[in-house]
Amino acid sequence: MVPQWLIEKKRDGGELTDGEIRDFIRAYTDGTLPDYQMAAFAMAVFFRGMTDDETTSLTDAMMRSGDVLDMSDMPLPTADKHSTGGIGDKISLPLAPLAAVMGLDVPMISGRGLGITGGTLDKLESIPGYDTRLSVERFREVVAKVGCSIIGQTATLAPADKKLYSLRDVTGTVPSLPLITASIMSKKLAEGAETLVFDVKCGRAAFAQTRADAEALAASLQRVGRLLGRKTAALISGMDRPLGRCVGNALEVRESIEVLTGGGPDDVRDLTVDLVALMLSTSGVRADGPELRDELRRRLADGTAAAKFAEMVAAQGGDASCVENLSRLPQAEVVRDIAAPASGAIADVDAVKIGRAALLLGAGRCAVTDEIDHAAGFSDLRQAGEKVVAGEPLLKLHASRKTDTAEAERLVREAFVIEA
Amino acid sequence: MVPQWLIEKKRDGGELTDGEIRDFIRAYTDGTLPDYQMAAFAMAVFFRGMTDDETTSLTDAMMRSGDVLDMSDMPLPTADKHSTGGIGDKISLPLAPLAAVMGLDVPMISGRGLGITGGTLDKLESIPGYDTRLSVERFREVVAKVGCSIIGQTATLAPADKKLYSLRDVTGTVPSLPLITASIMSKKLAEGAETLVFDVKCGRAAFAQTRADAEALAASLQRVGRLLGRKTAALISGMDRPLGRCVGNALEVRESIEVLTGGGPDDVRDLTVDLVALMLSTSGVRADGPELRDELRRRLADGTAAAKFAEMVAAQGGDASCVENLSRLPQAEVVRDIAAPASGAIADVDAVKIGRAALLLGAGRCAVTDEIDHAAGFSDLRQAGEKVVAGEPLLKLHASRKTDTAEAERLVREAFVIEA
Repeated sequence: MVPQWLIEKKRDGGELTDGEIRDFIRAYTDGTLPDYQMAAFAMAVFFRGMTDDETTSLTDAMMRSGDVLDMSDMPLPTADKHSTGGIGDKISLPLAPLAAVMGLDVPMISGRGLGITGGTLDKLESIPGYDTRLSVERFREVVAKVGCSIIGQTATLAPADKKLYSLRDVTGTVPSLPLITASIMSKKLAEGAETLVFDVKCGRAAFAQTRADAEALAASLQRVGRLLGRKTAALISGMDRPLGRCVGNALEVRESIEVLTGGGPDDVRDLTVDLVALMLSTSGVRADGPELRDELRRRLADGTAAAKFAEMVAAQGGDASCVENLSRLPQAEVVRDIAAPASGAIADVDAVKIGRAALLLGAGRCAVTDEIDHAAGFSDLRQAGEKVVAGEPLLKLHASRKTDTAEAERLVREAFVIEA
Repeated sequence: MVPQWLIEKKRDGGELTDGEIRDFIRAYTDGTLPDYQMAAFAMAVFFRGMTDDETTSLTDAMMRSGDVLDMSDMPLPTADKHSTGGIGDKISLPLAPLAAVMGLDVPMISGRGLGITGGTLDKLESIPGYDTRLSVERFREVVAKVGCSIIGQTATLAPADKKLYSLRDVTGTVPSLPLITASIMSKKLAEGAETLVFDVKCGRAAFAQTRADAEALAASLQRVGRLLGRKTAALISGMDRPLGRCVGNALEVRESIEVLTGGGPDDVRDLTVDLVALMLSTSGVRADGPELRDELRRRLADGTAAAKFAEMVAAQGGDASCVENLSRLPQAEVVRDIAAPASGAIADVDAVKIGRAALLLGAGRCAVTDEIDHAAGFSDLRQAGEKVVAGEPLLKLHASRKTDTAEAERLVREAFVIEA
């Protein structure tokens, strides 16, 4: 393989063969193909796109750059969900145990957040003792015994994606549909779940800003999943405003537990139910419909899902008593109301500004090496459509005593649009 | 400067400011900007192009990445010629001394050939003793005293171009008009000549395959030259067929000396005369017209130009007796006629195939580190339009005894199209 010939072929709009893509990714993974050739290739892909066959070959090659788990011996049908990410998105936490109590095995490998509030792993790590670094063996044991397990990406899972992801970040090659598809799918397929359900976020705080972009991403993810032999489904959900009333790691665990025990905000519960219903129907375990939805809500209300969550937390070394006693989660030193400057109806809450404000409080990372303040963030967010009286809290700010909260408070005030 | 923001701006079709481009090139030159970011940038430029202002800033920044010669103290107006390169193009050798005898000082910094028959430097180095690595000081002395000097690119001349040129070669980012323009012009402008004349080759063996491509390249080179304060002119010449009747380093020196003494093939002499006339008229030294053309031909025929060439060769340590005695140039061990397979008119001679054949004989380099066989190549090429009888030679092949010439001979036979 002469790497520049492949780059030139893609640059000139040609279609690469499966073998060419595999050679390219293999050479990149073992280090014989340098970053500069991959960077030029990624930029050519940004401009030229990829056919379904090319995207599938790329995904498969990236998946096979590392370990691929075989989950075919799990007791129940296996299914997982992937969200393209948004502010206040804690759905994985209530979703995994709810799916597990409904007859699915959920092997979930999640990421950390960067340039945004913490990822699923960061949220779970706010539970004292919770270990996100189980061995593959232990991960399989927990899935088989409990029905769900959520761990972090191991070094041996899709290493080509790990390398390419960091490179894209600094070479202006992030927003490319085939590259995004291959990045998401190479990791998700390596988990070995038979069914994959996608929550594609759409809106100002999401990668897909328009409905058309979100549809295209959903279609691309599903096509590649199907071509590689998985059952797939996708829903598109809004990401203009924060999801739920809590943003921040321990605060989102708290909200997840509220949902798992029948409470919590409607939007978080509804999206959890929608996605679990989709996992069940796509995997062929249950037909969707009002009855299934009712049953899912009952499993939240009657404590079954919460018990399953506690079981998973315990199996991963975490303090399961958090589920009964939310005060065992990390608590911020400073909790302060931010008051509404005027009375009226809340017309809008800008998720981008809320996300940036939470980042400033320490709830997320600017650089990979940044430490997260698990207790920091916002709770009790008022949502769009609600009425507010001047002086009433718009939300509660949670921070450490040494954090300068001025800029975060300014962003919060900007985020809320109140119409008289 | 955040490099990926600049890459993204170009990727999305924005126009970079002069300061942004200068920062980018400065960081690339000093090594703080890695190759992978430059590779992604170059690919974005391939797709998005550059405005004249951007190309000018890029050229100027690359020129200023190293030493810029000041030739304003030369006794005569300074002028140089740049050719975009082709098979059998030895024009620089007769051109520089002819321009010098006509009242110009010609400071010429040339390159080596790669993936093609040798460059001007390789040709000159077939003259025993000729030193292409003069110091900048000695180079200036020779130009001032003799009127012309041809040396190789020094390490301190446009180092940003040197780096970027190698990177483009392996990242599929060679054929980009602004990048080609900046690469050529950053080196040529650093020589300090007031007038620059371009010979833009057009045809199957040239970068510019179509007339439109050649016009675009000529226009781009001239615009940037003018914006940076130089007098410029360009002509477009054909590169479907080899130029002249010799291809190969010592053989092209021989042909150049033939032209310098009033002989040689018409096409080489005519192009030399055209380009020198353009240098003289563009620099304002002489008005173009039949009288000037006659005078130029006379200077070739009467030996004045040849004497100037000998003077330059001697000033650079070379054996000037070559001019009187062509047998002092390297001679091949094997010289063999390749016979015409049929009788008829020569309809075509494919310069690409002749070039590849010469490369196989050792007249050029596949890799930068390859050694050149200065004696190897072809002479006495029959040209398109001429009649040939079966069994008569199409050309003479020059090679060393240990060279396997079979593939080169096959290519030669393919290159000639003879119509009955």
